[in-house]
Amino acid sequence: MSRIHLDILFGPGYQLHPYKYVYQPGQYAAEETVDLVTPKATFNNVRVLGPEREQTQVEISITDAIKLGLNVPVRDSGDIKGSPGITLIGPNGLVVIEKGVIAAWRHIHMNLVDASELSVKDRDFVRVQCGGEIRPIILEKVLVRVHDSFVLEMHIDTDEANAAMIANGDLLKIME
Amino acid sequence: MSRIHLDILFGPGYQLHPYKYVYQPGQYAAEETVDLVTPKATFNNVRVLGPEREQTQVEISITDAIKLGLNVPVRDSGDIKGSPGITLIGPNGLVVIEKGVIAAWRHIHMNLVDASELSVKDRDFVRVQCGGEIRPIILEKVLVRVHDSFVLEMHIDTDEANAAMIANGDLLKIME
Repeated sequence: MSRIHLDILFGPGYQLHPYKYVYQPGQYAAEETVDLVTPKATFNNVRVLGPEREQTQVEISITDAIKLGLNVPVRDSGDIKGSPGITLIGPNGLVVIEKGVIAAWRHIHMNLVDASELSVKDRDFVRVQCGGEIRPIILEKVLVRVHDSFVLEMHIDTDEANAAMIANGDLLKIME
Repeated sequence: MSRIHLDILFGPGYQLHPYKYVYQPGQYAAEETVDLVTPKATFNNVRVLGPEREQTQVEISITDAIKLGLNVPVRDSGDIKGSPGITLIGPNGLVVIEKGVIAAWRHIHMNLVDASELSVKDRDFVRVQCGGEIRPIILEKVLVRVHDSFVLEMHIDTDEANAAMIANGDLLKIME
């Protein structure tokens, strides 16, 4: 979430409070939540991710996009051109963003050593074997994102996780 | 839904009214809906499928199971042993079923001619290539169900459809 939107939703100069650090260094789920509102539905208590971003972005699953009545593109984080907007409500105010709602393109974070060992580079696509006995699937076109600060981890949305019946912490196999 | 549950929820002898026939012959989405209730959530206006069944069964996605707070098994239709129950509310009454809530095991309906051409038989598993440029996936362990009355069609839940970004009527490829 951008600084200006934090100011409006939570109050001028408001600082997010880390609730739970996630696996990527410095990133956290904040204590703060907002409500997401469209003409079709309202989602209450949606958690904000920290730290602050350059621009406000809302990542949702396709299932939730359908419930909200939004036709969202599947995009790499930050690529919000042409995406639909939404209304955010916080304890201090309301913001209508004109764009920024996307479904995240499934991706794998890794550092340079991981990338070298796997013989891939930033923005390559790989195939990943997911799931066990019940719902095995192969995810194709999984985007590789390489940065020194990244820890090896795949990010998918709840639709993809539930289609494969996989959960946080499960081990997966990148295919040849 | 079973006769006895239709009696309680909609009234003695109540007959379902077809709202929209689906692709499998004789099967339809009914005009009638019920509410599904658990201690964690309520889903309103959930459509009943007709015609009547031997036993009442509720098929939901894993996403919806999580919202309802239910740990549902992934099962072939009719295999409800050990599955959680739920409360159903209709215009005439309320039913608490002790079991019957499942996520459907993904499957393909086909007739004997289709099965012969594809060199598969009832209860085989096949792999299916799904999705286009955006979210291509391969679904493994897709159950084949063969019956003279069946029309060639794959049934998946909304998690699986959204993970692949496919919709009703899309053409898919069964892999060698």
